[in-house]
Amino acid sequence: MGKNSQVRLDWSLVRRLIFGSPLSTEQMAHQRLPKILALPIFASDALSSTAYATQAILLNLLIAGPHALHLTLPISVAIVVLLWIVVISYTQTVHAYSQGGGTYIVSRENLGINWGLLAAGAILTDYVLTVAVSITSGVQQITSFFTNLAPYQTELAIAAIWFLTLANLRGAKESGALFAIPTYFFVLTMLGTVAVGVLGPLFGYHPRPYQPSAQQTAQQVAHAISLGLILRAFASGCAAMTGIEAVADGVQAFRPPESKNAAHTLVAMGAILSTIFLGISYIAQKYHIVYYGHGAHGEEAGAESVISMVARVVFHDEPILRGVILFATAIILVLAANTAYADFPRLSSILARHGYMPRQLANLGDRLVFSNGIILLAVFVSVLVVAFGGNVDRLIPLYAVGVFTAFTLSQAGMVKHWLQQRGKGWQWKVMVNGIGAIATGIVLLVIIVEKGPQGAWVVLVVIPILMWMFTQVNRHYQKVRARLTLKDYEPQPLPPHTVLVLVPDVHRGVVPALEYAREISKDHRAVHIEINPADTQRLKDRWEQWGGDMPLVIIESPYRSLIGPLVEYVKQVRADHPRHLVTVVLPEFVVTKWWERALHNNSAFLIKLALANIRGVVITNVRYYLD
Amino acid sequence: MGKNSQVRLDWSLVRRLIFGSPLSTEQMAHQRLPKILALPIFASDALSSTAYATQAILLNLLIAGPHALHLTLPISVAIVVLLWIVVISYTQTVHAYSQGGGTYIVSRENLGINWGLLAAGAILTDYVLTVAVSITSGVQQITSFFTNLAPYQTELAIAAIWFLTLANLRGAKESGALFAIPTYFFVLTMLGTVAVGVLGPLFGYHPRPYQPSAQQTAQQVAHAISLGLILRAFASGCAAMTGIEAVADGVQAFRPPESKNAAHTLVAMGAILSTIFLGISYIAQKYHIVYYGHGAHGEEAGAESVISMVARVVFHDEPILRGVILFATAIILVLAANTAYADFPRLSSILARHGYMPRQLANLGDRLVFSNGIILLAVFVSVLVVAFGGNVDRLIPLYAVGVFTAFTLSQAGMVKHWLQQRGKGWQWKVMVNGIGAIATGIVLLVIIVEKGPQGAWVVLVVIPILMWMFTQVNRHYQKVRARLTLKDYEPQPLPPHTVLVLVPDVHRGVVPALEYAREISKDHRAVHIEINPADTQRLKDRWEQWGGDMPLVIIESPYRSLIGPLVEYVKQVRADHPRHLVTVVLPEFVVTKWWERALHNNSAFLIKLALANIRGVVITNVRYYLD
Repeated sequence: MGKNSQVRLDWSLVRRLIFGSPLSTEQMAHQRLPKILALPIFASDALSSTAYATQAILLNLLIAGPHALHLTLPISVAIVVLLWIVVISYTQTVHAYSQGGGTYIVSRENLGINWGLLAAGAILTDYVLTVAVSITSGVQQITSFFTNLAPYQTELAIAAIWFLTLANLRGAKESGALFAIPTYFFVLTMLGTVAVGVLGPLFGYHPRPYQPSAQQTAQQVAHAISLGLILRAFASGCAAMTGIEAVADGVQAFRPPESKNAAHTLVAMGAILSTIFLGISYIAQKYHIVYYGHGAHGEEAGAESVISMVARVVFHDEPILRGVILFATAIILVLAANTAYADFPRLSSILARHGYMPRQLANLGDRLVFSNGIILLAVFVSVLVVAFGGNVDRLIPLYAVGVFTAFTLSQAGMVKHWLQQRGKGWQWKVMVNGIGAIATGIVLLVIIVEKGPQGAWVVLVVIPILMWMFTQVNRHYQKVRARLTLKDYEPQPLPPHTVLVLVPDVHRGVVPALEYAREISKDHRAVHIEINPADTQRLKDRWEQWGGDMPLVIIESPYRSLIGPLVEYVKQVRADHPRHLVTVVLPEFVVTKWWERALHNNSAFLIKLALANIRGVVITNVRYYLD
Repeated sequence: MGKNSQVRLDWSLVRRLIFGSPLSTEQMAHQRLPKILALPIFASDALSSTAYATQAILLNLLIAGPHALHLTLPISVAIVVLLWIVVISYTQTVHAYSQGGGTYIVSRENLGINWGLLAAGAILTDYVLTVAVSITSGVQQITSFFTNLAPYQTELAIAAIWFLTLANLRGAKESGALFAIPTYFFVLTMLGTVAVGVLGPLFGYHPRPYQPSAQQTAQQVAHAISLGLILRAFASGCAAMTGIEAVADGVQAFRPPESKNAAHTLVAMGAILSTIFLGISYIAQKYHIVYYGHGAHGEEAGAESVISMVARVVFHDEPILRGVILFATAIILVLAANTAYADFPRLSSILARHGYMPRQLANLGDRLVFSNGIILLAVFVSVLVVAFGGNVDRLIPLYAVGVFTAFTLSQAGMVKHWLQQRGKGWQWKVMVNGIGAIATGIVLLVIIVEKGPQGAWVVLVVIPILMWMFTQVNRHYQKVRARLTLKDYEPQPLPPHTVLVLVPDVHRGVVPALEYAREISKDHRAVHIEINPADTQRLKDRWEQWGGDMPLVIIESPYRSLIGPLVEYVKQVRADHPRHLVTVVLPEFVVTKWWERALHNNSAFLIKLALANIRGVVITNVRYYLD
């Protein structure tokens, strides 16, 4: 984005206060992280999924009635099995792409550009949903504690989104410390909760089963449990797996040996994620937690999150512990959203450099961040959150489509990679990634079929549109490149050159423009548009004195329009000498105070706009200052 | 106003539908009118005052209680005496200024420019109030008949204002027929009503005295009648005199002998106006009409106009006759407003030509009307009407200040005129205009003192502000003229000329700009702002092939800003060679589809803005078309 220095000067103080001082390109450095600091950065997104994954399973099972809730744990176990297939599959990606194996790169390199664009569309959608789901889920944790804030969930979410946006425009670094403290605090809090809830009874401490309200009990209905129901609950729970691809994207951030350290971190993350997720699902099922969702008790009532209910059950409604757990969860959800604020602009900038998105997205802003991408993300997320009323339950069904498209393409790309490389043990590697690709592909189909009607169709429409836009943008840039290439270019001698000076009147402001026209070409003439015929004679007299040898063309304007006759005349000059270049010199005088501009016709801008439609015309402004 | 031909082409159909086809300057012709057609054009404003003058007296007297209403007729008689003083006084103006003796002209010529500007400010304010009062009064007549429209008086007034504005932008001519039919119809209707009401009892037909509602009777209070009360009622009733200066402004519209015909018309108008006004006041007083004003029965209830009550009284509540009277009144009020739509832009254009208002106000639009002045008037009136809730009772107190300032200045100017001329019978003429000036001057003081607190202070604040603005505008134009004059101007030889070409990259779109720079000066260089240092080497290689002998200057941009370093460099070039003229050539390529613009940085516009702050810099655009 080109920056207007004038605007920057006027606004510099304001801008610096909000965004901080500009950073020079040299200040960009690549941090290398030890595993203990890399884990929080790359794991916050995945670990935060535990805040809504079990909840999504419970909500879907409840459609059949409370008796279906005993399927929570079996479905969670199935998801964890799938999770490990994906984790193991990605450890191979980490080794193969030590420069960073983002899905777009892997798909593009191995499967071709179209699959790469499909992956890109899917992942960009996924990033938008990561922010939307994480923020609305974070707000739900807060409103589960401060229940009187529940009617303001959309407003709170929008405020959080724009707070994150501002922080990222300032250049919030993914610094280890920023992520490490809240992430480890969350991990400890959740592992502690799960440990007390699961192991407590072995030591004589019994969680208190969940007590639904009378109102809730009254609503209970019972339907038969169908395969579709189970698959829908499974598909919704797959939201637990979002974010586990993050490590593969950022291998370069690890200390050497990068790939090995990244793989270890990936496995550690998988282990923590599995434990917390299974623990929550176990407690939810064993102590009869029921989740009715937003709107079940009126739009304004909000819905207590499953994390909040788990805290109640395990700690016997003790408010301080519940508060600590909810705030720890809310903070890690904000961090998860923040990772998308780094990833979306980064992928956009890669796509822009490859010519698939507008190139402004590849420009580093003042603070060394891709400001345009950050703003674009914030706008998309805001629209989505408002459209879905800040309701995390309605956003979750959209979430998994993009993620599982990316998983499938990434693993399939790896299969192709191994088939081409045929290095040591390639058969084993093909099998691992093959199982990953097939398993996630099947789950993707399940998600599309089962979640499509619940809202996932939006994503199924958006991704192809994005792909179409990528190709249109690319076609344009290719066309531009083809037209601008200097290959086989024969420099043409500059055509003969006619200069026209627009002369509204003869005065000191016009004379320099006349001199300029004489200077730049021998073929020059002055043009006067006759708005008020009464003034013409005076103009002619003055011209005799000041115009020298320059011919003066007077053009009638019966309708008192300045621009129409001028455009006509320039077109005619072009038609008379099609090979001539025409320079139109516009004398312009510059006033000193802002309000003085209102006292002049300011037609130069409109003239420029009008002449911009005629080819072979160069527009030149010669200004004259009044003071 | 400069017109953008591009915009006009795109919108031409829409514009023609709304405003009509443009008219050529030749189509402007001056109509000469017989007295029978001139009277309605010049009298509609004055005659329509009868719609609200008696009403204003009644409303002010009621403050003391219904017993004060017997002062209505005496006060009306006093106003009519004043009216004739002014009419006779103006007949002398008509003879002295056969070219048109508008107050601004008369005051300016005889009393000097500052008094002229005071007159101009007063009259412009008066025109705005003429529209506001006439339209709101017209709406009151309509809502007196359709009482359920009363809550929408502001909306109706705004709709009427913008209808009039559109009609005038189309160039509604003050054609005799348009004005004649409704004006004479109104005159006949009102004279008929007055005749039946006043003379009917002589022939045995008795009007039915007004019956106030029980609610109204209950509100009646009684206070002592004070001199202040009488003066306030008198000052309010002076609204009857608004518009009688119109004939003097338009002497040129009469057939020869212009002055004599104009004077006859003025006297005829005074006679009709006096008759109708006194007749209404007589009927109102005799048959106990009480006017409580807007808001007396709740803001939404509206207030029945005095004209409506007079019609009830005279015609025994016969609805059709009352409807005819009210509509005739509403239409003449709209015509009165319309005269201000001709007068305000005309006076503005005169002031603009004299250099006291922005010169755009002197431009004739497509339809040979002063479009900018019409729009300015409509905006002022709309603001006023909304601010005063479309309530004519609240607008009336503002009205008389401007009118009486103009009367006083105009008559005083005439006194000065006769004193300077000393023609035949000048002593008599000085006396007539002197009495006019003193009488209207005293009334002006009464109005300021008595109506000031009721809202007239707004006008007392606005008029000096307008005068201050006139002088500021004039000072600016004088400064411009002084700076632009060619008197004593020594043409300077054009200073040496340095050309800089901005080169973001070397491609086909840039080469013509390089050629152009070589063509217009021998002192040329290319400038590249190094946003991304990684690309610089490639640029240098290409430059060796395509740059020829032109030096390439590479400027570092540590903060990745394009504009800041460019501006710095241009300033430095200017500082190194203070006498050099610097031309900055901006190569720009033009895309073919609108959405393609979003795919490019479009920095040329911002660059131009930034460079516009550096003196001695000429900006030249060389465009390259992609198709």
